[in-house]
Order: sequence, then structure tokens, then C-alpha cells
Amino acid sequence: MQIAILIFDGLTALDAIGPYEVLSRLPGAELRLVAKQAGLKRADTGALGVQADLAIGDLPDPEVVLVPGGEGNRPLMRDPEVLEWLRGAHESSTWTTSVCTGALVLGAAGILDGKRATTHWAFLDRLSELGAEPVTERVVEDGKVMTAAGVSAGIDMALTLAARIAGEEVAQAIQLGIEYDPAPPFDAGSPFKASPEVIGMVRAAERGSS
Amino acid sequence: MQIAILIFDGLTALDAIGPYEVLSRLPGAELRLVAKQAGLKRADTGALGVQADLAIGDLPDPEVVLVPGGEGNRPLMRDPEVLEWLRGAHESSTWTTSVCTGALVLGAAGILDGKRATTHWAFLDRLSELGAEPVTERVVEDGKVMTAAGVSAGIDMALTLAARIAGEEVAQAIQLGIEYDPAPPFDAGSPFKASPEVIGMVRAAERGSS
Repeated sequence: MQIAILIFDGLTALDAIGPYEVLSRLPGAELRLVAKQAGLKRADTGALGVQADLAIGDLPDPEVVLVPGGEGNRPLMRDPEVLEWLRGAHESSTWTTSVCTGALVLGAAGILDGKRATTHWAFLDRLSELGAEPVTERVVEDGKVMTAAGVSAGIDMALTLAARIAGEEVAQAIQLGIEYDPAPPFDAGSPFKASPEVIGMVRAAERGSS
Repeated sequence: MQIAILIFDGLTALDAIGPYEVLSRLPGAELRLVAKQAGLKRADTGALGVQADLAIGDLPDPEVVLVPGGEGNRPLMRDPEVLEWLRGAHESSTWTTSVCTGALVLGAAGILDGKRATTHWAFLDRLSELGAEPVTERVVEDGKVMTAAGVSAGIDMALTLAARIAGEEVAQAIQLGIEYDPAPPFDAGSPFKASPEVIGMVRAAERGSS
């Protein structure tokens, strides 16, 4: 099974690597990081380089497509070559997925038209502009389109996807393999739980990013 | 604040990138991925290349050191150059940390002598051979040494570390920024929760890896 994760300069690394860690462990998975052009891409903080082994043109028909977020994906929303690849891949895919603001790129490609979808909480209002019905859930499935909320939600989505593809027992074995028994030291991971001060700090930092 | 994440061929990517995503967002953080030699390193599944921007010799005195896991770190346990760098870095560090089997490398460097520490659940017994006191907790602090359980536990550790370094409000803002409000679809992330069948699948797959 070919799984393509689309990367680009300015990506949020965990959006891609969380799902990578889960999906690359699926039996028979051929996971590839792809980009408009192959080569090293720098994450949004600048402190990390991740390699795109293939160009999108090398992998026209992946069975699973995943688009991560990060401020660097905004130019993709206006890039005919990338949008064309996405539409083509979506036509034949088993699953078309996104993490965080990756949903904006799916939306720009017309893939979210009339669909329930989610994205990073600070960008949810952008989804309706792109024809989707925004949903405040961590993982949203609508037909073969699966979207995840911000950054770390990609891990939960990938486990859900792993279960759809290979069954719950395989998904649980992957969960146990990565010891995903989360215990965050604080309960501030959602705007419904964080303090107004903390929300203000993030809104200030997120302006134009993620 | 210089933060060094040591990478190598055969690393478990999420061990490094989970903490990277948290720690690179610390105000004033200068996070660098380092390796014995700079250049592209392939993760343990082979499907991902991550760039080491610096060689360890270029960064002798980081304030925070993090060693991730992955079967590729076993050779480091016998590599005098890497162990010497770790010991030197530990002498002047504010925090010396590991995720998953990264603890085995800290142990091989003598850094865990007599210390409470943790690692991936399938490798806990290795810690006592290396002079540490194995602890079944997700994040373990002993003095300036902080160790995390398997793979995804690095995210919880990094948030704990972020709070120690920059205060709880900053750590919570990072948690909210990466929307870390985990909701795994299954409750199988620990050997105390997974079914015997699922534990058996992982033990078979982990032989010699992680």
C-alpha cells in the first residue's frame, strides 16, 4: 500500500512525523515523503530538515494521501501543479487525509466541498470559506476523507486510519509499540480547557503561522 | 539556550520529533539536530530522512541534551567519541534527557549510575544492567536527568521540561499550540492496558529493535 505524505518548506514537523510513525508500521505500507520537488525541506521553526525522497510526479496514485500543516503550505493553496496532483490522487485514493492546516490545502483543491472536516482550532473559520462544514472534533471522517485537528491530533487520526486499513488489533499493536498512553502534565491542549491568558499567548503567536 | 537532539541512522523518528516540536517553540531556544557526523540520517523504518545540521563536535556544551531511541542507537553504546561527547555535555548541561531506548545510551555513558530512570516498556530490564533503577512511569526526573518511556512519551517529557525551563504558562501555550489534547481511539498504549495478543504482537516485532 502506497502512502504519500506531502511535505514542503515551512511544514509543522509533528503534523507529518506523528502519522508517519504510526502508518509506516502498517504491514505492507510503502510510505513516502513527497514534495513538489524532491529534496530537503525545512520545518517552520527552521531548526529541522526533512527529506522528500520523491517528487509528487513520481507517485501519482497513492492509496493514502496525507497533507500536514504549517505556514509553508499556504502557497500550495495557489499552486496548480500541487492542486492537480491532489485532485488526481484523491480520485483513486482509498483515503485522503490532512492534519492541522493541511485541511486548507485539501479545501483549496475542492476536496472538502460540502464535507464535514476539522483543522487546528485557531483556523476552523477558514474551512467554511473553502466549502467545508467545520467540526470541532479531534478526528473527523466523511466518506474517504479524514481530517485531524492541530498538530498532535495527527497521531490519533493515524491510529484511527490504521484500524480502518488493517483492523483494530494491528492499530492497537502500533499504539503499544509507540507506547501511546498519553499523560500530558497539564490539561491545556484545547481552547475549551486552557486559560484565557494561555489562549491569548497562542493567538498572538499563531498570527499567520501553523 | 542551546538544545541538542542526537540523531543517527536507525532512529525512531517520533522519539526526536515529538520533543523537537515542543522544545523548538521555547522562547530563545536554539535547537539543533546533531549526529556523530552531520548529514542525512534514515529513520528505523527506512522511509524517512532527517538532517543532522551539525556534528557533535560543533556543539560541545549544549544546555539541554536529548537522546532518542531506535535500534540504530545500539552502536552508540560502544562508540567512544559519542560517549565522551555525552559525558562532557552532561557535565555542563542544565538537563540531560532521553526518550525510549535513548536511556540505554545515557546508561552506557555512565550517566544513569544509581539514578531512577525509564525507557520503552519492552526494554526496562536493560536499565538495571546499566546501573540505573528502572521505574515504570511515563516521565522520570532524577536531579537534572529526565527520561521518558517509549516513543510518544517524549512529548509528555518535553512539556514537563518546557515548564521547568520557562514556566507552566509557556508550557501550556506550547501544549495548546500543538493542540495536545490526546484522544487515542483505543486504550492499548501500555502493557498494563493492552490485551495479551496485542502485547505478543509487539514483543515479536520489537525483537532487537526500538
